[in-house]
Amino acid sequence: MSPLAFGPEQDEALERDAATWRPLVSSVRDLVDACVTTAVDDDEVRTAQEEIEAVVARLRRKRLPETLGRSYDPGDRRRAWSNPVIGVRNPVAPPLVVRRDAAGRAESDFHLGSAYEGPPGLVHGGVVSMILDQMLGQAVGATGRPGMTGTLTIVYRTGTPLGDLRAEAWVERHEPIKTFAKGRVIGADGVVTAEADGVFILPRHVREWVAAKERGEDVPPMPSLRIFD
Amino acid sequence: MSPLAFGPEQDEALERDAATWRPLVSSVRDLVDACVTTAVDDDEVRTAQEEIEAVVARLRRKRLPETLGRSYDPGDRRRAWSNPVIGVRNPVAPPLVVRRDAAGRAESDFHLGSAYEGPPGLVHGGVVSMILDQMLGQAVGATGRPGMTGTLTIVYRTGTPLGDLRAEAWVERHEPIKTFAKGRVIGADGVVTAEADGVFILPRHVREWVAAKERGEDVPPMPSLRIFD
Repeated sequence: MSPLAFGPEQDEALERDAATWRPLVSSVRDLVDACVTTAVDDDEVRTAQEEIEAVVARLRRKRLPETLGRSYDPGDRRRAWSNPVIGVRNPVAPPLVVRRDAAGRAESDFHLGSAYEGPPGLVHGGVVSMILDQMLGQAVGATGRPGMTGTLTIVYRTGTPLGDLRAEAWVERHEPIKTFAKGRVIGADGVVTAEADGVFILPRHVREWVAAKERGEDVPPMPSLRIFD
Repeated sequence: MSPLAFGPEQDEALERDAATWRPLVSSVRDLVDACVTTAVDDDEVRTAQEEIEAVVARLRRKRLPETLGRSYDPGDRRRAWSNPVIGVRNPVAPPLVVRRDAAGRAESDFHLGSAYEGPPGLVHGGVVSMILDQMLGQAVGATGRPGMTGTLTIVYRTGTPLGDLRAEAWVERHEPIKTFAKGRVIGADGVVTAEADGVFILPRHVREWVAAKERGEDVPPMPSLRIFD
């Protein structure tokens, strides 16, 4: 089974769960944006701080026993909910919604506001690299041979304007252990602002799983990419 | 005057202003963390959302006329307050506090929590690249010859564990238009997890300013790096 194929029941259960989180995380994204765009006076800033502190206390009454990435089984999409680029539950993430296919193509149309600004009016170059790393990884993962980033090279053609943007990535070729991928970011005017080249490495335990699957053996779900435990 | 040299009066005024923002933004960072670590029930999530929405409305009563990066003059450090890596006013930023010197060295000790997780227990590879882009840029800027990132290459040696980390960057050499810099991220155990190579390009209008300064001419403050307006 391709890691892209999920049953309608799993989709519905995940969607119900995501629907609980989306409004909260969307409001926190608005709050992040308000921090960098507000011009209210010092008293209002202090009052806002006290109100937020109370919400933090509310949410901290009960805590996951470990990070979200460690709280779910491999293959469970909730594992990616804390991802800082695509995470449904992570206000740091814009978030990108990535469409992809098993041939190893990934694309996303997204918006970056003031919280992602580097040079005046432009996206921070590091944010551009962060998004391209994620996009290339998504393209590689879509082929069923996920990998950890080994090398990532970004060429910045021109500044990336804040606002509506598009990112594309695709797999160029596979070697037994490495997958080579490329990608780019495109501004609303169609200009390519940055290009990426990445080499992704298949961890040994995943390699063994892929080999067994390719021999037609009856394999368990895709193993975890975790390499530290 | 080196861009690193500020008078004590400017430092004090900036510090007073920063002291207003730090508690608010620190609380919003806690809130971001709580979004990815909380295990409270759906009703609590909905209540938290309503409370945050009210804070957003409070902060949006008065808005800066343009992005923070465009709201201050070149050289004013408040311009960097929305920076997504080091920004005092940006909850997306961990934030890094970067120490640097005019020889082109930059270093920072910082902490990354659950909001920066990629693979289970590890920092997202894109976050590693984002931080290295900023660190190399800071090292380059410290020499008085700031540049826009032209090319950035990251080699990932091993996974970067969430938690306490260190980043270092330094300038290798200058050409008339390009500056070459290197950097790395180091885990709490001293292991180098990622290395970076970057080429930074001096924009033409900054180049002309640097040339005039080097001829000993009486020049205005360092011009903006903005390239779109």
